[in-house]
Amino acid sequence: MDNIQIKPLILITNDDGDTAKGIEVLTRLMIKIGDVIVMAPDGPRSAQSNALTVTHPIRFKKLEEREGLVRYSCTGTPTDCVKLALNEVVERKPNLIVAGINHGSNAAVNIIYSGTMGAVLEGCESGILSIGFSICDHSANADFSIFEPFILQIVKTALINGLPRGVCLNVNAPTDKIKGIRIARQCDGQWTKEFAKRIDPQERAYFWLTGSFENFEPEATDTDEWALANGYISVVPSKIDLTAHQTIATLKNWNF
Amino acid sequence: MDNIQIKPLILITNDDGDTAKGIEVLTRLMIKIGDVIVMAPDGPRSAQSNALTVTHPIRFKKLEEREGLVRYSCTGTPTDCVKLALNEVVERKPNLIVAGINHGSNAAVNIIYSGTMGAVLEGCESGILSIGFSICDHSANADFSIFEPFILQIVKTALINGLPRGVCLNVNAPTDKIKGIRIARQCDGQWTKEFAKRIDPQERAYFWLTGSFENFEPEATDTDEWALANGYISVVPSKIDLTAHQTIATLKNWNF
Repeated sequence: MDNIQIKPLILITNDDGDTAKGIEVLTRLMIKIGDVIVMAPDGPRSAQSNALTVTHPIRFKKLEEREGLVRYSCTGTPTDCVKLALNEVVERKPNLIVAGINHGSNAAVNIIYSGTMGAVLEGCESGILSIGFSICDHSANADFSIFEPFILQIVKTALINGLPRGVCLNVNAPTDKIKGIRIARQCDGQWTKEFAKRIDPQERAYFWLTGSFENFEPEATDTDEWALANGYISVVPSKIDLTAHQTIATLKNWNF
Repeated sequence: MDNIQIKPLILITNDDGDTAKGIEVLTRLMIKIGDVIVMAPDGPRSAQSNALTVTHPIRFKKLEEREGLVRYSCTGTPTDCVKLALNEVVERKPNLIVAGINHGSNAAVNIIYSGTMGAVLEGCESGILSIGFSICDHSANADFSIFEPFILQIVKTALINGLPRGVCLNVNAPTDKIKGIRIARQCDGQWTKEFAKRIDPQERAYFWLTGSFENFEPEATDTDEWALANGYISVVPSKIDLTAHQTIATLKNWNF
């Protein structure tokens, strides 16, 4: 009998759009590991979280098809991209969903706003091994080269080991020399001074989102923010079950 | 000395928009408890999760001001509404943020897509007691009357007891006679058959989000889905820390 080995099927998306450098790099890397389907938004969808398109329909179109790679773009959000690919495009269940490489950090509370991590949480919800990759550099021409070998290492290791149902990975990289990988937890903190106020020619106010992140636990060495600030890639196992299980007993004492 | 008692300041938002019946009911209830500021989207923003508006600026305008109530509408998402109110509108930190009453369930995995619960998670992230209220009825004219006394009870109890930093409440109600309140956990499950495909006059496909929810643990009696299916209001304590803490040790054995 032939020993036929099926290559892993890998679905890729992002929130920076189908022409971003980060998804080009991630696609080039994933082709080395498996058969790749890209379903990416047709433009920027940063900070779209797990938003879904419900007030109008969405569409997708094929951009490219060659050996081991099919690329589509979609009019929806990153989460729409994952849902649409899984429901309407793939012929078998992907072995892996990867999102990114995001231009900008998705560490700490950024995970709840990120379209990239929204797609990863969606992949996780669908029962597929899912990993988000981000680098702490917002520029369109960010340099991902020092991150690349670690991405391959993390993906290969995750494919071998798998993850429990309901758990995915949020991987962030610093921009300078990388010392290694740290398994970390989501740092507690908060965005402050979040809006820049401007006045239009009709003298009406409008507001641009901006702000700076305040780390509430700068001394803690087990957080993603600490890892990134100290030259390490942070890998945070992240859950789709938001239940605060430790608070259930407390609430039962409220005696409703 | 005068015994001056300051009323709690309550910020209200939703994702169904500033004219939805649900937010009208919630506002009427909250006026009984405190001073109320409403900052609601100026139209439907369902399934906007924690999405932020980053590609264009946002605006808000005052709709109404009377004793104990100021109402604004905002061009942004529910999460934008909370951020904008906290950064640019309130003169003191609210004691409570409530969102809803959402027309439609936000139980189980719906929490990660919901704009209503996005606003609640945002309020929680900002360190304020935050509660989302939803009813399992999508209709614009949903009947909230049997839910109303429980909303007052839950809010008053939460104001007395408080919640740990990083924990908020996801409260969902059934539509029929309510037997009581159950403290519950987020049910595991998945949306399936998620798109309705249509063909336009140019013979191009487009896709509407739809689908049905599959409960992966129908036998479990401690989930929000069980509570709702059995005539109870579900109260799920929910976290903004998505870390899968139990998986950290596993990942450390991956030997990066």
